[in-house]
Amino acid sequence: MSYHKNLTIGLFGFGVVGEGLYHILNQTPSLKATIKKICVKHPDKKRNAPKELFTTDRNELLLDPEINVIVEVINETEAAFEIVTTALKNGKDVVSSSKKMLAENMPELLGLQKQTNMSLLYEAAACASIPIIRNLEEYYDNDLVQSVKAIANGTTNFILTKMFEDKLEFKQALLLAQQSGFAETDPTLDIEGYDALNKWTILLNHSYGIVERPENIVFTGIQNINQNDAMVAREKHYEIKLVAQAKKLNNGDVAAFVLPQFVNQHDQLAFVKNEYNGVVIESGFSDKQFFYGKGAGSFPTGSAVLSDISALRYDYHYEYKKLYHHQPNRLTEDFYLKVYISFDNNAFIPKEKFEWIEEWHADLNRNYLIGVLPFSELKNTKWWKEDNVSLILSPEPIIEDVEIRKLKKKSLELAGVTL
Amino acid sequence: MSYHKNLTIGLFGFGVVGEGLYHILNQTPSLKATIKKICVKHPDKKRNAPKELFTTDRNELLLDPEINVIVEVINETEAAFEIVTTALKNGKDVVSSSKKMLAENMPELLGLQKQTNMSLLYEAAACASIPIIRNLEEYYDNDLVQSVKAIANGTTNFILTKMFEDKLEFKQALLLAQQSGFAETDPTLDIEGYDALNKWTILLNHSYGIVERPENIVFTGIQNINQNDAMVAREKHYEIKLVAQAKKLNNGDVAAFVLPQFVNQHDQLAFVKNEYNGVVIESGFSDKQFFYGKGAGSFPTGSAVLSDISALRYDYHYEYKKLYHHQPNRLTEDFYLKVYISFDNNAFIPKEKFEWIEEWHADLNRNYLIGVLPFSELKNTKWWKEDNVSLILSPEPIIEDVEIRKLKKKSLELAGVTL
Repeated sequence: MSYHKNLTIGLFGFGVVGEGLYHILNQTPSLKATIKKICVKHPDKKRNAPKELFTTDRNELLLDPEINVIVEVINETEAAFEIVTTALKNGKDVVSSSKKMLAENMPELLGLQKQTNMSLLYEAAACASIPIIRNLEEYYDNDLVQSVKAIANGTTNFILTKMFEDKLEFKQALLLAQQSGFAETDPTLDIEGYDALNKWTILLNHSYGIVERPENIVFTGIQNINQNDAMVAREKHYEIKLVAQAKKLNNGDVAAFVLPQFVNQHDQLAFVKNEYNGVVIESGFSDKQFFYGKGAGSFPTGSAVLSDISALRYDYHYEYKKLYHHQPNRLTEDFYLKVYISFDNNAFIPKEKFEWIEEWHADLNRNYLIGVLPFSELKNTKWWKEDNVSLILSPEPIIEDVEIRKLKKKSLELAGVTL
Repeated sequence: MSYHKNLTIGLFGFGVVGEGLYHILNQTPSLKATIKKICVKHPDKKRNAPKELFTTDRNELLLDPEINVIVEVINETEAAFEIVTTALKNGKDVVSSSKKMLAENMPELLGLQKQTNMSLLYEAAACASIPIIRNLEEYYDNDLVQSVKAIANGTTNFILTKMFEDKLEFKQALLLAQQSGFAETDPTLDIEGYDALNKWTILLNHSYGIVERPENIVFTGIQNINQNDAMVAREKHYEIKLVAQAKKLNNGDVAAFVLPQFVNQHDQLAFVKNEYNGVVIESGFSDKQFFYGKGAGSFPTGSAVLSDISALRYDYHYEYKKLYHHQPNRLTEDFYLKVYISFDNNAFIPKEKFEWIEEWHADLNRNYLIGVLPFSELKNTKWWKEDNVSLILSPEPIIEDVEIRKLKKKSLELAGVTL
């Protein structure tokens, strides 16, 4: 049976995750992993660990030949990139939780892993405690993944839950999220979808071998969703979730995006409330698997980092099987989405861009329509994420190119509504 | 990066799982896995595959040097054991879905894997499509697993769901399960807990390095649960589930059993309805992970078998890390359980065995009590699974030895009820 090596760790960051990690490694000698040095920004802060462990000099960790693992939980994009790339080049395995850094630099980080043959693990960077990367890598390691859907951002899910269940307006719900510690003082990255997008960029690689820059993926957040949208959802027995998703189409290309969506109340994703995350994978024999857990916070992040550390003892590394061992899939724009769009003023809605419109609604509070748009319209324009326009996908939103004519004809016949 | 080898498969069994597997491997050349020969019992049955693939002679598969993988989906315990052990000895990797065979023969199968250095994978044998073994092996690979709870049998969960939601009596619900294809004509193995027990025997090894014979694990099924129990559950805002569970106690020993349990309606296990399975793992930084999917049937079983086949391309084998690389945990009887017990006649209830009784209830339909029993009482006696006695655990049932005096005193003071 395989050996397992002792790990001597250099830790960057001693916030809640870093400190928790320090204590659990101390209390668990069986892990055979010791923190030798901790690099922090502010050396004089009172800390719950021996003073001699701390330094402000990166090189005390990165150049120490005894340290064979660098753990980086600082979440500062540029510094994290510096640290991770230097560590790999210096022959150290790395565990990182910096999703933005990883999402934005994947091509270079892939190259460095190949070049140095060192391991870079980052389970904490996507849905934290849910072992989604490991499962995509190891269990769904063939090219049979049909679709992956995720609620990957706890802040937005908390806000949507409160808007839906307690009928709070967006701003009240955001305030509550901040008071509960589930949203940052500047919540833009979460609210506007950037955080979910970064996670999705990472997961697209492990799901389909797709390495894409975040800015090339269609996304928005929940900033424009309001109580009228929530009311429509309740009437239709839906909930609203910010869903990151990817689906392999019949021609083998992949549709992927991060957008708000109506979700049936019996859908697994509807079970994901408040700050939780959830992932549904459909694969092979088309059975659905649902993974659920906390997606942020010190414990969930810590537990993911710990599992990565533990895996390094057995020289584990991601093999990126879909990228290197199979024919990687390609992102496509050639499909259509069924969307709900609500708005104050229909002058801003380019009705001529819709393939068809199935439902129009107007009342004192709000106007909305339900119709089918080419995905390229979302890719190439911004009107659908402007102020006072909110776009929410239908429960089964993707319509393939080959189906569109047939469905359009049928839909127009049924609805008796045309443009 | 690692190589991956071509697999030439000898398949035992061509029921729904075997046939589905055959077709998907045919349609997915990227898997580089080909079925060379299929061993069946009845050669003359009309089958949806070329006639020359079939044989009734085991040795045509087991002795063929070109066949490097044996896949066994026959679910006949003795034949499966023969096939699996012969295949390993003949230098072939094996994928098996025969839970009973695996549970009953684990020590010998562990020895054979060591001796032959061949791989034996059996994800389909526990919660089918939920990749629980792989996650316990790879992601929860250290000794930090605090507890594992599972709804591991879809038949009993289907029946309990119908008893709870549709207020069916046990027998009606069983009939419905049979009509819906979720229960066998002879449902004893499922209903009385044997199937869940076999799965739990397998999972105890991967969770804690505990290798135990099934008959040494305390278990029962749902055969004695009736509509009055369901009514009590509804009054207390609980649901009833058959839960296989294991928990590491403060002294490091493990409490494990398969028993019906009251589950809070917000518990993840309450989300698991009808024929579905679910597993909750608590570990490391004490965060809970929830895995959910189908636990039986051709597609879920097929998808698990397929993932095992796929893993063999990379020479994957279980390392049994908790058993071989850590100090394996031990099963203990030194703890107490808080239980609800309903009965027709209280003469059969050994009241003197209870540490204390918190609640008594008697009415025209049914009598019940809620109290605390030493686990050894369940281990050493059978009265609690006799006809007309139904035992259901409290939501947090385990009381550790060190806590019992304190809790007993407090409980007697509060309740003012003694024996």
